[in-house]
Amino acid sequence: MAEADVDVLLLSVGADLPWLTGYEAMPLERLTMLVAPVGSRATLVVPRLEAPRVVERPEVFDLRPWGEAEDPVAIVASLARGARRVAVADRTWAVFLLALQSQLPGAQWVRASALTGPLRAVKDAAEIAALRAASAAADRVAAQLLGGEIPLLGRSERDVSQDIGRRLLAEGHQKINFAIVGSGPNSASPHHEPGSRTIRPGEAVVCDFGGTMDGYCSDVTRTVWTGTPGAHERKVYRLLQSAQEAGVAAARPGVACEQVDAAARSVIDAGGYGEGFVHRTGHGIGLEEHEEPYIVAGNASPLVPGHAFSVEPGIYLPGRFGVRIEDIVVVGEDEPVPLNRVSRELTVVEV
Amino acid sequence: MAEADVDVLLLSVGADLPWLTGYEAMPLERLTMLVAPVGSRATLVVPRLEAPRVVERPEVFDLRPWGEAEDPVAIVASLARGARRVAVADRTWAVFLLALQSQLPGAQWVRASALTGPLRAVKDAAEIAALRAASAAADRVAAQLLGGEIPLLGRSERDVSQDIGRRLLAEGHQKINFAIVGSGPNSASPHHEPGSRTIRPGEAVVCDFGGTMDGYCSDVTRTVWTGTPGAHERKVYRLLQSAQEAGVAAARPGVACEQVDAAARSVIDAGGYGEGFVHRTGHGIGLEEHEEPYIVAGNASPLVPGHAFSVEPGIYLPGRFGVRIEDIVVVGEDEPVPLNRVSRELTVVEV
Repeated sequence: MAEADVDVLLLSVGADLPWLTGYEAMPLERLTMLVAPVGSRATLVVPRLEAPRVVERPEVFDLRPWGEAEDPVAIVASLARGARRVAVADRTWAVFLLALQSQLPGAQWVRASALTGPLRAVKDAAEIAALRAASAAADRVAAQLLGGEIPLLGRSERDVSQDIGRRLLAEGHQKINFAIVGSGPNSASPHHEPGSRTIRPGEAVVCDFGGTMDGYCSDVTRTVWTGTPGAHERKVYRLLQSAQEAGVAAARPGVACEQVDAAARSVIDAGGYGEGFVHRTGHGIGLEEHEEPYIVAGNASPLVPGHAFSVEPGIYLPGRFGVRIEDIVVVGEDEPVPLNRVSRELTVVEV
Repeated sequence: MAEADVDVLLLSVGADLPWLTGYEAMPLERLTMLVAPVGSRATLVVPRLEAPRVVERPEVFDLRPWGEAEDPVAIVASLARGARRVAVADRTWAVFLLALQSQLPGAQWVRASALTGPLRAVKDAAEIAALRAASAAADRVAAQLLGGEIPLLGRSERDVSQDIGRRLLAEGHQKINFAIVGSGPNSASPHHEPGSRTIRPGEAVVCDFGGTMDGYCSDVTRTVWTGTPGAHERKVYRLLQSAQEAGVAAARPGVACEQVDAAARSVIDAGGYGEGFVHRTGHGIGLEEHEEPYIVAGNASPLVPGHAFSVEPGIYLPGRFGVRIEDIVVVGEDEPVPLNRVSRELTVVEV
């Protein structure tokens, strides 16, 4: 904070708060906020009815429960009084930020991730072990998908999505974060919302799913085929495989994030499908599904050992089909360490 | 907007956007934002990879997909250029609000709920039907709980919570929003996080759960006993029943929100347990679990027909036990209409 010239850090919903205190704010209209002034004690301002949920850590923060007739923003403002530069958690609700700005006039406001993002991005051994365990659990579900244990034909995307979610829990996740299932033409929509469409023979089915296990996230994508794909589909899939491998191979210390993106993208560009790769190559992962480092053009930050992120190129042909392959990769001391190990080979599932 | 002297409305994550457009923003680091200037066309700024999810409604908004190398905040700022007063959705992430404030210097910022809250709070017939259906589905799960179909004894709170969640889905919800299970001393923590504690005979178990069904939320609480409670527990429960009935009975047009709170609270105060009722009596419900009107001391706004909210007093005795009963109630033309109908009688479940 001193280095960043920040007088007080205000943390609310999002992962910064549990990362520093072990306590996660409920995303509700009752404000929970840690007030951490540089060089003095931190205070966790919490709704009185949620105070019993807090595991008290007097060495880390004081607790200040507020009652239903109090104004929590006034309490935070009074604890932060005199601060010149205030860093506020990225996901703090605008309604609270506006109220705080009005009660702390003259303060300069910056996003907390400017401080916490680069620190959280580098995982220690325990965090890598947790990411590895979560990825292994997601891999077991992916193996069930590839092995035909998750029926696809004749089911709706929504049914398959819920099935995958249940399996994430059964394999050890405490929380399902998402389970995208896009079939046929819907596979060409990268963030498709699984719906009532029935999966039919001879289609591409993009399955992208993840959850939270012991605090850390998983995220894996496999594309399967409900019938042997034609020559064009096979060609596109092979190209994607090469691109994904190139992205993973580039994930070494000292390489800029954007170079990992370029490594995957240049393969797809060279194959003539650059227009179909409409998103960045990946995102960091940890306590949150998406966090720093972002693997995107324009991010010149160099990778360091302990960075963990997805490598997930895709090729999308609107109205026809799309494919994506995604693994989580950790940057090791001198080489990439993929956490997802389940097969990336073209797989036909006819159940 | 003209009445509120607002030049442009900016909607992002939260329910205001789907309420007005049918489209729900993904809560991710890629900005989705509707820019709605007073008196001219609205534009939905959306990440390019999410554009295929949008059901286009040219009569409501134009679509402006942005690519991974563009700055969405600059796009929004340019669409909102010249606005003097800007209303921004309450749950918009602080990181986006700070960026917008820096790109629209001089603008005055207000929370969107000042405009949308009172409008969304009054439900029309279709919305009431949706709330009724969601409540009925939650009631079926509550009936299973009261009827002993959900085993409690020897299970962890977390297991029971997951079981309730699965049943919410089985009864027609598309999404589980929460399933609080607090047993024994944990029942005295109103927002208890279900954990590894095993439920034992002779305990109070507070179960508070809800989900989303066809866009609208359910929320119901029942407290059951795993063995006949003692005289003191029975007395506290009867007092709570009376308080909850008094709160429901007060929910009539023209009554101030705080009077509904006072109606329930005064019963508990008179019974000598006022210190144990640490939260407000209720919250509005609709597209979101918690929305206006808030049934809390200090809210003098009068109820009108179509207001829908929870009436959920509780009595919490730290270290010992707690009880809560909650129903959703709609304000009718001249009387309260409870949407939850499942029994509120003291129920012993010995399985």
